[in-house]
Amino acid sequence: MIIIGEKINGAIPSVAKAIEEKNEDWIRDLAKRQSDAGADYIDVCSSVMDKDVETLKWLIDLVQEVCDTRICIDSPSAKSIVEAIPFCSKPGIINSVSLEGDKIETVFPVISGTDWECIALLSGKSRISESVDERIEIFEQIMEKAKEYQIKPEKLHIDPLVFSVGTNPESFSGYAQVSRHIKEKYPQVHITSGLSNISFGIPSRKTMNQAFLILAMQAGMDCAIIDPTNRDMIGSIFATEALLEMDEYCIEYIGAYNEGRFGVKKS
Amino acid sequence: MIIIGEKINGAIPSVAKAIEEKNEDWIRDLAKRQSDAGADYIDVCSSVMDKDVETLKWLIDLVQEVCDTRICIDSPSAKSIVEAIPFCSKPGIINSVSLEGDKIETVFPVISGTDWECIALLSGKSRISESVDERIEIFEQIMEKAKEYQIKPEKLHIDPLVFSVGTNPESFSGYAQVSRHIKEKYPQVHITSGLSNISFGIPSRKTMNQAFLILAMQAGMDCAIIDPTNRDMIGSIFATEALLEMDEYCIEYIGAYNEGRFGVKKS
Repeated sequence: MIIIGEKINGAIPSVAKAIEEKNEDWIRDLAKRQSDAGADYIDVCSSVMDKDVETLKWLIDLVQEVCDTRICIDSPSAKSIVEAIPFCSKPGIINSVSLEGDKIETVFPVISGTDWECIALLSGKSRISESVDERIEIFEQIMEKAKEYQIKPEKLHIDPLVFSVGTNPESFSGYAQVSRHIKEKYPQVHITSGLSNISFGIPSRKTMNQAFLILAMQAGMDCAIIDPTNRDMIGSIFATEALLEMDEYCIEYIGAYNEGRFGVKKS
Repeated sequence: MIIIGEKINGAIPSVAKAIEEKNEDWIRDLAKRQSDAGADYIDVCSSVMDKDVETLKWLIDLVQEVCDTRICIDSPSAKSIVEAIPFCSKPGIINSVSLEGDKIETVFPVISGTDWECIALLSGKSRISESVDERIEIFEQIMEKAKEYQIKPEKLHIDPLVFSVGTNPESFSGYAQVSRHIKEKYPQVHITSGLSNISFGIPSRKTMNQAFLILAMQAGMDCAIIDPTNRDMIGSIFATEALLEMDEYCIEYIGAYNEGRFGVKKS
């Protein structure tokens, strides 16, 4: 399982405050804690409209000062993302493209032939669809574009889109159908999702996010954008990998437990 | 989801002590807490060899003094179980029969034509098999017996057997295959399991049990023998039901949360 640490995101009020106050130590600490918790990538999102690239640079520099975890550059602007690529000391992940606007045309030529990977959301040119068939159709169109720009399947992370189970009872089953289609057709393509949409508008969100994570892993999700310092989530990932025969005799599970990554905290 | 509260079991040292000391209040409290937590049945197991029936009666009486939750009579002796049936004020569940010895021949004639239900383990005449095919073969033999004694499929709870994932990497996949076979052939038969075997011998057992519960529910488990006072487990059950389209718009999930059955404890 690939873990992208989600905590450095200006949409979170405490992070917005740290960005505004230029609180370097606070950002460094947030990066370090995610890296120490085992994040494979650290997502960096400014959520600042007019100084997006400048803020991304500031954040990326701070992260790279305290750890060598790869960066996941996160912005609604494909232009910002492309401009932020040179700030990263090694290839990471782009978060994200979709069929909307010229995102793919802006990003794919730049990462073609490099080791950069890319998250692609299954949202269409002008709208988001909850229909399974439409999402699969969008996936096929994205794969066409990837072929055109010679982006290898293993560099792609598809986000099948997660809708709140509070408003869409078929949220998980739709997610699972799209995921299974992707994995059957392109086993090397990663399935990558932010989980928290599943619980939008309902109470005890962590409870729902955790159950979704476990079921989504069985449906093929192999990369998650989560809070890596959430010990229950990390425990669920290791347990599910063992149950799904990805960790024979629980070697990884026991190792992670012994490192103190989940379970009752040792004093 | 049907919940059988597992806590009144003489194999647990604190319960053994209460039984030995005839600590009535302690047993009453344990029954009450499970009932209040939403248990549909309360399992009662003496784990006493020579005074099994007498101890079962003592325990059942105490449970029935404080709640009207139905009883799940639990004993390795089919003879003890049949003798304990009259102590129960209303029909409950027998835990359990299998092809071993004369268990089925002792229990099935007694519950035939009544509202009593029965857990049947998929273990053979002389041995427990981890093979999927053998377990399915045992299932078919049990269904033959049920037909012979006119036990309706909806009165049967099949336990497909859970083996430790620490020693058997295919534990969950085998469980899921057996469960799916059962539900395809007899949709009305319940799949009922104790979960804790899955984590035998590995650390942070609750972490593994919870992930197994969620995956097992997707494979068809509709009844679990668990600790109903474990709020994380209860939260996982409600979340998984919503994700598997058994709780449209999270009505039950939100209701259980509002009743304080899971999530952060309200002070």
